[in-house]
Amino acid sequence: MITGDMETKRNHGMAKVLEAIRLHNGTTILSTGITGDDARLAKAAVEAGARMIEPNHPAVALARGLGGVTTMHAAEQIRHEVEMREMINVTRGVRAVVGREIYITVGIPGGFTELVPTEIPDEYFAEISRAGADGLHIHKSTIGDLEQVVKKAHQYGLLVDAYIAHPDDLHLFGLPARTPKEVAKIAKQMEEAGTDMIGLMTGMSYEGVGAGEIHPVIKERLQALVETVKTPTLAEGGINLSNFKAFMGTGVNILVVGTSIDDEVRSAARKVVRQFIER
Amino acid sequence: MITGDMETKRNHGMAKVLEAIRLHNGTTILSTGITGDDARLAKAAVEAGARMIEPNHPAVALARGLGGVTTMHAAEQIRHEVEMREMINVTRGVRAVVGREIYITVGIPGGFTELVPTEIPDEYFAEISRAGADGLHIHKSTIGDLEQVVKKAHQYGLLVDAYIAHPDDLHLFGLPARTPKEVAKIAKQMEEAGTDMIGLMTGMSYEGVGAGEIHPVIKERLQALVETVKTPTLAEGGINLSNFKAFMGTGVNILVVGTSIDDEVRSAARKVVRQFIER
Repeated sequence: MITGDMETKRNHGMAKVLEAIRLHNGTTILSTGITGDDARLAKAAVEAGARMIEPNHPAVALARGLGGVTTMHAAEQIRHEVEMREMINVTRGVRAVVGREIYITVGIPGGFTELVPTEIPDEYFAEISRAGADGLHIHKSTIGDLEQVVKKAHQYGLLVDAYIAHPDDLHLFGLPARTPKEVAKIAKQMEEAGTDMIGLMTGMSYEGVGAGEIHPVIKERLQALVETVKTPTLAEGGINLSNFKAFMGTGVNILVVGTSIDDEVRSAARKVVRQFIER
Repeated sequence: MITGDMETKRNHGMAKVLEAIRLHNGTTILSTGITGDDARLAKAAVEAGARMIEPNHPAVALARGLGGVTTMHAAEQIRHEVEMREMINVTRGVRAVVGREIYITVGIPGGFTELVPTEIPDEYFAEISRAGADGLHIHKSTIGDLEQVVKKAHQYGLLVDAYIAHPDDLHLFGLPARTPKEVAKIAKQMEEAGTDMIGLMTGMSYEGVGAGEIHPVIKERLQALVETVKTPTLAEGGINLSNFKAFMGTGVNILVVGTSIDDEVRSAARKVVRQFIER
């Protein structure tokens, strides 16, 4: 087992993350959705300043029209059907166009709380790492599952960003924690398990919040996370152009942004096609 | 050999094309580039009214960052490296999200004037047809090569759109014809060879034309094509929001639009990412 090289690789990865956070004055974005998996748009995101990119398997299910899915919700149901080979090719292609200085974290089949048994064989960690991944974007929902993934990821030079969820969330995208106190406790456990970056899922269940604001409950949970851990922190779920500034006040380091970008891109495609047709 | 079924399939395909042209008052678009191969954006194009979609192998090379290519010019050099399996999967996925009423014509390795020997085995015609293609988007540059492809395509229920180029074009994307008279002659030959739709490559070599106009040479060539054949006609190359209306006056039925859409989509991605970063 080669451990020194892989520690060096992880250190390089973390240096990229810290540089992205520094460059963007404490809060950067992790650009995902279509900018995570389409090499044309990953390049566009990087040209616009993004330093962190995330291809992931549910977004690739959408990109490939797998089973005819057209919504993220439907894609989550069949994401495990995306082949690992596909994620490896996507990662290789995105790396080839964005260059070495960009941090790439990848969502892979088996890395989320999958609906069918989906193991990640050792060679997949090796292959995704060799394809150009700096890290894995992990949405496991027990500390035991997370520990296993972190151990294997580290062995192959990959960092891990993983998440804290709310037990009432429709789909579990992280370790459940009901109160800010529990958030802090779980965050501590995740940090001790070696998780390199720890995020909070905002959940989709908080309604009634005004434009440009985030719900006080999310703010409290995010603060509990930020104050507890030394690792870089993330927030994911429903972050868009009208609310993202409110996240910045919380001290969180990385905003995961996907659907909001996809919506703008889709809207641009519709607009230009319409101009050619409706003259 | 099943011939009746396949003739019925071709008739269905042609009915979709004629309906698209009718719906858009004589001139429709064939939406390609990122709207041809990414299921998310193919769906957006169709929502905006597009009725004809074209996935093709050079655009997929860009989408997958194959060999790190980031420009169409570079993609054309390596497009034969895209695997047929990839084009089959793309076609299946796009078909799954756009529904049955949309015409899909596919550019496949071996279907263009490839730089390395690239045969199209019979089973590839069968597979792409079964994956949901109505036709093949062909850029062969001799009548002999075109005849072979048309024959096989028809056998598997696929229509063929093929093109006329200019002998001085940097890359040959069709049968060369220097003068309007030659355009008419070649168009006639292509029609006799069974080509179902015949297009004119505008070429990139005509400079000095004002915004919103097309070069008189292209206009003459396009008119020679339109007046000669009974098949639906196309124009491809450099068609954008500022010049497409000038094409409509020529009587051409289908404008192939790719780069111009890609540019708008890329620009939208850059804009939204920049908003998240440069606050």
